Amino acid sequence: MATKQKRNVIVGQSGGPTAAINSSLAGVFRTAIDRGYNKVYGMIHGIQGLLEERYIDLSEHIQNGLDIELLKRTPSAYLGSCRYKLPEIFEDKALYEKLFAILDKLEIDCFIYIGGNDSMDTIKKLSDYGIVTGSHIRFVGCPKTIDNDLALTDHTPGYGSAAKYIGTSVKEVIRDAYCIEPKGGLVLIIEIMGRNAGWLTGAAALAAGEDCSGPDLIYLPELPFDVDTYVAKVRDLLTKKRIVITCVSEGIHTADGTFISELDSGAGYVDAFGHKQLTGTARYLCNLISSECGCKTRAIEFSTLQRAASHFASRVDILESFEVGGAAMKAADEGESGMMAVINRTSDDPYQSDAGIRDVHKIANDERVVPREWINEEGDYVTKEFISYLKPLIQGDVQPIMVDGIPRHLYKPGFEHML
Amino acid sequence: MATKQKRNVIVGQSGGPTAAINSSLAGVFRTAIDRGYNKVYGMIHGIQGLLEERYIDLSEHIQNGLDIELLKRTPSAYLGSCRYKLPEIFEDKALYEKLFAILDKLEIDCFIYIGGNDSMDTIKKLSDYGIVTGSHIRFVGCPKTIDNDLALTDHTPGYGSAAKYIGTSVKEVIRDAYCIEPKGGLVLIIEIMGRNAGWLTGAAALAAGEDCSGPDLIYLPELPFDVDTYVAKVRDLLTKKRIVITCVSEGIHTADGTFISELDSGAGYVDAFGHKQLTGTARYLCNLISSECGCKTRAIEFSTLQRAASHFASRVDILESFEVGGAAMKAADEGESGMMAVINRTSDDPYQSDAGIRDVHKIANDERVVPREWINEEGDYVTKEFISYLKPLIQGDVQPIMVDGIPRHLYKPGFEHML
Repeated sequence: MATKQKRNVIVGQSGGPTAAINSSLAGVFRTAIDRGYNKVYGMIHGIQGLLEERYIDLSEHIQNGLDIELLKRTPSAYLGSCRYKLPEIFEDKALYEKLFAILDKLEIDCFIYIGGNDSMDTIKKLSDYGIVTGSHIRFVGCPKTIDNDLALTDHTPGYGSAAKYIGTSVKEVIRDAYCIEPKGGLVLIIEIMGRNAGWLTGAAALAAGEDCSGPDLIYLPELPFDVDTYVAKVRDLLTKKRIVITCVSEGIHTADGTFISELDSGAGYVDAFGHKQLTGTARYLCNLISSECGCKTRAIEFSTLQRAASHFASRVDILESFEVGGAAMKAADEGESGMMAVINRTSDDPYQSDAGIRDVHKIANDERVVPREWINEEGDYVTKEFISYLKPLIQGDVQPIMVDGIPRHLYKPGFEHML
Repeated sequence: MATKQKRNVIVGQSGGPTAAINSSLAGVFRTAIDRGYNKVYGMIHGIQGLLEERYIDLSEHIQNGLDIELLKRTPSAYLGSCRYKLPEIFEDKALYEKLFAILDKLEIDCFIYIGGNDSMDTIKKLSDYGIVTGSHIRFVGCPKTIDNDLALTDHTPGYGSAAKYIGTSVKEVIRDAYCIEPKGGLVLIIEIMGRNAGWLTGAAALAAGEDCSGPDLIYLPELPFDVDTYVAKVRDLLTKKRIVITCVSEGIHTADGTFISELDSGAGYVDAFGHKQLTGTARYLCNLISSECGCKTRAIEFSTLQRAASHFASRVDILESFEVGGAAMKAADEGESGMMAVINRTSDDPYQSDAGIRDVHKIANDERVVPREWINEEGDYVTKEFISYLKPLIQGDVQPIMVDGIPRHLYKPGFEHML
């Protein structure tokens, strides 16, 4: 292949969006152009869209350096995303045949997929199928997830920006809560994303510093959550301070695996339409605390704000995301397949990293959680080691490109599926 | 007084906090020092704290120019806030006597109170009592509220920053929502503060522009909300597009005055502890839409994030807040009492403003809402005139002072009531 004329590249985005996934897309695009590929196609809504032959020519969307900068600052998945798990090859060979026929028609040499665990599973299956059928197409994955739960990479693109937003927002709402003196106390409970891994919830500890005492309690989903112990701790804290701040993962659960948010349903929590409703984890705990301790409570869910807040992204994250997109494209160009680009931390302090590649067969479907020793013995806070790991990833700012007081995102007329 | 030695100033903060109220505090402090006052005291938790003789010497907290800049960028009320309405003078004369005795002991010449309607009521009563008793103390108010509902001022300090955050966050979560293709559609409902006035909810329209279609429907509390009409509109929109974005004020209500969030209680919405719970407005509407239209829904509450997000404040807002704090102090120094500093808009485009003062008797307890003609005929969006009014107030950035990846706020050791 090396001596042949380079043909085309196709890139897709998959899974939950982040503030950094488009920076990786920009990295793939620029590296593909720099390395002499003809066209760079973008799958609309990932592999699901590709199966319906929905794609665009990215050169029509990224026309100059300013477009690259706008794309780096555009949250969500520019190409649209999907949640689609490929069947095993033996289960539906026809689907693979259809997919490869589409790729051949588009004269694809390199297939880059930006996403999390499911996306790496896609890369693994496609590269396996390619090997079996003697395809020349190279399949390389580019990691992405705010959850930071992918194996073999030091951290995932998207995590740093979400963590920075969470640390800052927790600090701001703590300051907000402390300005009043509620009679009987106030318990503020903040619910943070990450159902199985506590990397994001732990980032709430970033709020603590010389000018803020930070959260009082932080609960990660890695350890079972004991409701009675929690109530006792809050009751005790309320005798010492008038405001108690708790940060919880949406995925905290009891020792038997029941999500806290599911505890409500047993009690007949039925809405006006006669449907059982799951309340949020924070809201459930607020109801509980207000009932048990008789104090005021306030539940805050950061919801999709935490993964979409590109207006306050981490510079380290956005630049690494760009770099790792480029590394995935470079690996595919150099003949690698069935691989995922990763970030290696080469120095802690001063922080340095570089991009590498690892075999996707060792990554797919393997969920990395916060190590037990990075959670304190009581199970209600993260340790200094956790913070030392995280701090370098939130450094520096990426100024939004402001137009008339609001951040500008990349958008090209005719691309209505994203508006 | 003019020839006498200037003595001391006392300043307090009251009501709901904002991202800009501390910039006004900084403006009061610097102007008081510039004009030769001896000490500037700060009431801890407003007039409620003052009645318990809780105050600080602000010079110990604001020691240099950097402290001023940090204070301008610190959200919430630096001095602590309260919600305390003074009784009428004839109802509790002893309380007024006590308060004035404290002020005399502290050798106060000027009393500045930064807050909303209730705070201006405080200024009115204190200045009335001062006139009746021949006190030399000048009482001047400084406006503050994200709700923008104070009369006689073009807008209120704090509104611009909250509006900028809301417009930007709505744009980001819209982009986030559009990246998927949900079967049967997705209805995203965002709940925004402002129980009686729709100034903040209308700011959601800032999301719309060349790169974002913005919300589909915006409902302000100024008009009655008809649930059936809303469901019909959403059902119709879902036939045309796969994602429908609605922004609602927390205070929308039916024609008979029932808050939408109260509709649930009639249906026996009882939590696990046997208590009737008010669900949020957005959550109620999500349950309704999911029940009626069979589509996915997502409720987002911006909660206190919208009033605390100093990491993305408006430069116009922070500078005007500083200026209006200074104007209140200047007015008091020049002998005015029973007045409130205001912002006058002197030019629309290019935007220009200056600070003035108005009689607080004409302001107190008068709530300004969005004029009917700035809401469209259908009652489900704001007009261009609304946007033209708002746009100048969100311009420009105030870069946070970043320390180790997180915005630094002003804090002095020993000031634990704010940590």
